[in-house]
Amino acid sequence: MNGAEAVVASLRACGVEVFFANPGTSEMHLVAALDAEPGARAVPCLFEGVATGAADGYGRMTGRPAATLLHLGPGLGNGLANLHNARRAATRLVNLVGDHATYHKPLDAPLESDIDAVAGTVSGWVRRCRDSRTAGADAAAAVAAATAGRGRVATLILPADVSWSPGAAAAGAVPRASRPTTGPSAETATEYAVADDAVAEAAAALRCGEPAALLLGGPALREPALREAARVAAASGARLLCETFPARLERGAGLPAVERLAYLPEGALAQLRGARHLVLAGARSPVSFFAYPGTPGRLVPEDCRVYDLTGPDSDVRGTREALAHLADRLPGSHGTPATPGPAEPLTPTGPLTGETVAAAVGALLPEGAVVVDEANTSGLWLPAATAGAPRHNWLCLTGGAIGQGLPLAVGAALACPGQPVVCLEADGSAMFTPQALWTMAREGLDITVVVYANSSYAILEMEYDRLIAPSAAPGSEPGSEPGCGPARRDLLDLSRPVLDWAGIARSMGVPAARATSAEEFTAEFARALAEPGPHLVQACVPALFGPPSPAGAPKADRVP
Amino acid sequence: MNGAEAVVASLRACGVEVFFANPGTSEMHLVAALDAEPGARAVPCLFEGVATGAADGYGRMTGRPAATLLHLGPGLGNGLANLHNARRAATRLVNLVGDHATYHKPLDAPLESDIDAVAGTVSGWVRRCRDSRTAGADAAAAVAAATAGRGRVATLILPADVSWSPGAAAAGAVPRASRPTTGPSAETATEYAVADDAVAEAAAALRCGEPAALLLGGPALREPALREAARVAAASGARLLCETFPARLERGAGLPAVERLAYLPEGALAQLRGARHLVLAGARSPVSFFAYPGTPGRLVPEDCRVYDLTGPDSDVRGTREALAHLADRLPGSHGTPATPGPAEPLTPTGPLTGETVAAAVGALLPEGAVVVDEANTSGLWLPAATAGAPRHNWLCLTGGAIGQGLPLAVGAALACPGQPVVCLEADGSAMFTPQALWTMAREGLDITVVVYANSSYAILEMEYDRLIAPSAAPGSEPGSEPGCGPARRDLLDLSRPVLDWAGIARSMGVPAARATSAEEFTAEFARALAEPGPHLVQACVPALFGPPSPAGAPKADRVP
Repeated sequence: MNGAEAVVASLRACGVEVFFANPGTSEMHLVAALDAEPGARAVPCLFEGVATGAADGYGRMTGRPAATLLHLGPGLGNGLANLHNARRAATRLVNLVGDHATYHKPLDAPLESDIDAVAGTVSGWVRRCRDSRTAGADAAAAVAAATAGRGRVATLILPADVSWSPGAAAAGAVPRASRPTTGPSAETATEYAVADDAVAEAAAALRCGEPAALLLGGPALREPALREAARVAAASGARLLCETFPARLERGAGLPAVERLAYLPEGALAQLRGARHLVLAGARSPVSFFAYPGTPGRLVPEDCRVYDLTGPDSDVRGTREALAHLADRLPGSHGTPATPGPAEPLTPTGPLTGETVAAAVGALLPEGAVVVDEANTSGLWLPAATAGAPRHNWLCLTGGAIGQGLPLAVGAALACPGQPVVCLEADGSAMFTPQALWTMAREGLDITVVVYANSSYAILEMEYDRLIAPSAAPGSEPGSEPGCGPARRDLLDLSRPVLDWAGIARSMGVPAARATSAEEFTAEFARALAEPGPHLVQACVPALFGPPSPAGAPKADRVP
Repeated sequence: MNGAEAVVASLRACGVEVFFANPGTSEMHLVAALDAEPGARAVPCLFEGVATGAADGYGRMTGRPAATLLHLGPGLGNGLANLHNARRAATRLVNLVGDHATYHKPLDAPLESDIDAVAGTVSGWVRRCRDSRTAGADAAAAVAAATAGRGRVATLILPADVSWSPGAAAAGAVPRASRPTTGPSAETATEYAVADDAVAEAAAALRCGEPAALLLGGPALREPALREAARVAAASGARLLCETFPARLERGAGLPAVERLAYLPEGALAQLRGARHLVLAGARSPVSFFAYPGTPGRLVPEDCRVYDLTGPDSDVRGTREALAHLADRLPGSHGTPATPGPAEPLTPTGPLTGETVAAAVGALLPEGAVVVDEANTSGLWLPAATAGAPRHNWLCLTGGAIGQGLPLAVGAALACPGQPVVCLEADGSAMFTPQALWTMAREGLDITVVVYANSSYAILEMEYDRLIAPSAAPGSEPGSEPGCGPARRDLLDLSRPVLDWAGIARSMGVPAARATSAEEFTAEFARALAEPGPHLVQACVPALFGPPSPAGAPKADRVP
């Protein structure tokens, strides 16, 4: 057995089933090893950001790591943005990066680069295989690292000569006790022991009668923990909030509703205003996404005490236990909290906007759907419109690195073959990883992609106006709106030329349609959901923010 | 003046004209600063790999740095692969990366990451602006670093609060004497002083009568140096070779022809076999692109002495001087060496293949063209077919990170408004950065893109067969060819579904056509060259390597 075969066999023995791959010459032995290993599924990705984003989606939905297969430093670089998102999602993921042969590295061949330095920025664990004889154990250690505590990105760097050298052996799963952790809390949570002191402190705070909030994140947003959190909120009167961009939020009819913290600091500050006690469960103390002059970065009010119920690395079971213990310590906490019932299906009519798209999605979302949300500004109405839809999962842009949605949908669809995936994509974000559409076609994945085609980086139009005072905005021509110089126009406007998203999808083998009214969109969205395999609906909506187009047309007329 | 304004004004004062940009919230003040600065050209790129590759193309053609504008760590990550290529090309490039406000960084907001670590892997110079008052000087220092010696990637990290804080001042160009260098040779070369010892040693070697070769690279491949190198070769009988993937090779009718070192080590070893003396001018001692079991990584024969004429950081003028001095020391070196005359224009007929595409390109290539070559296996016939074409520049994949070609063409076209750009792209490579097509349309760039649509990672089909012995190739089904298991088929074959490149181009605003015969290709290629603005021709060619398609059809029938 050579090193590559040992790595693949060990990953398989540790439960890794899917390999999202864009290999190169230095990974050919890994490709051969995949062929030698029954049950290994190799999924081709035509860009590494698709591979890493798909592995993230797979890990979020299964709780088990998928592997990526990347080619040297540049391949890792191409996958870096979605590894950043996976890191922020605490996704279990094994990142496999090929490298030059050990004896070739000192020659500084054209593709030589510092893989370790780049990998370290997104990985909770990095190891370089030194010898084929330890390659199997290294692979097993990677899975153990990826699955310890809540989860993390584990990167294994595999030199070509380690891959092709004999003397290797497959290794099985590493026992839990010897797994790496990020601290004592990881092991504690994994063993489902609850920190009694933390529970007692939080219970005292919630019983004292002062205004309080419960901020949920990560594992607290899965059904078992969410139901206990709702009991806590019902018994204490604490406001039930969750982080702005959850990795995976279970929601819909019958599940406790939880309010997401706003993206802009003003909104989040308003949600937390007056709270004297903030109990964190699976969440970190909230901070602003970006800094703005004169706005605080920490969002917790100054006179508010923060209680961390679970520690940073608790998993679903540990978080649920902690919340259950907390609920049990509150008076009257044994009733059933109210949960939203199913919403009336209302299909929208009239002009196509973010609002009418959201209404159609809310009306048609199928039971058990996985919703990937990278809708950005166009998605403002989605949370309310889908709150009473049949039960579903909601996957967000955890790390803010756009280009996540289409790849995430690929991974989620492979993880959940029986569940429809709905991918709601802003056009600017979708352009970062359009190659994912081809993998959807290749694998015949049941994904309905909606591209909000507003032909604008609308969120930047908003941020520009927030950051640059109109009086300070340069380049305005006389008579035009302030703050609309040529650089702003050229860099934030995507309408010259307008992107034909239906055409892009069809060119990669995905059937597609274009909708310009709510009725058209509803019909095309319903058709896409009803038919198997991937579909794309280009929703031509006006941009929510931004100056008029250069031609002077009102915003709504800018859509094709 | 705020920090962002000082940075943009200083870059402009130091000669930076073009900003290839994909900004985010933390870079909005830089966008406003671009509007405040007359003469700054902001070019929107819908993916950061387009921005960095375009800056590389611009730098290769002008010798002056363009700036990129990237959003935090993930934006830098998306641009990393083409920065790797730019580093290998020794391109002058200023990489501008926005970051969170200094006081926001410790909060570990979702987009926080270790930008410095990632930047260090591709940059010859990295600096983080600490204060708006030094921002202008930092920007000037970045240009000085980028343009010292032969050139390098200089990365300046600009926190948002440094951008928006007042008290900044623009800085002018840094005097040459205080510029950073990579060693004594850099300054020497910049001052056009020739190392007499190196010249004398090389001259003695070339005069001794033993077989010798001259290996050119980097600045030695520009006309002034190339003519001197040809004199050296003519006078000494040394074989005239150049590196495998030059950043910019001037060639065509009337220029000395130079033979590129082969990609595969066996080929390069054959080219260098028997040489007892190898003189390097602007080139490094050659090594194999990848390691293969049983093949040496260093390509220089064991009994061959190597002479470095110029050092690693010489520029065009220094390299030319050194070669001229060397030629002057050789007997009979004052004649004019033979150069190829114009080739007969022969337009091909019959099936469309890599060979007939090359013939059409050779027959139709316009005077002064800039050819971007990422044709990979399909381009095997290009060097011979274009050797006698009118004078042109040939830009290669310097670092081996595919996805370079389309962005490089964008930058080259902006750098050379009067010159046609011909971009020869393998389909697998083109899929890494297709977003460049949109920028071509937005800017109305005169680029003719040829996509070799062989629906295969054909180079990997070749490498797989080189690396995995047929007897060892797993997963073969009984009766099929050896070494063609499902993972290999799934990961190296791009034909399910076939990519519609003409459709992808049209969807991004680039007129496109599809050609399936040599006659069709010739007509469409000629039309694309004749019309202004960008065009794409999808050349449906068979793959040069690989097993039969799963359906069992012969290779040539696999094309759509």
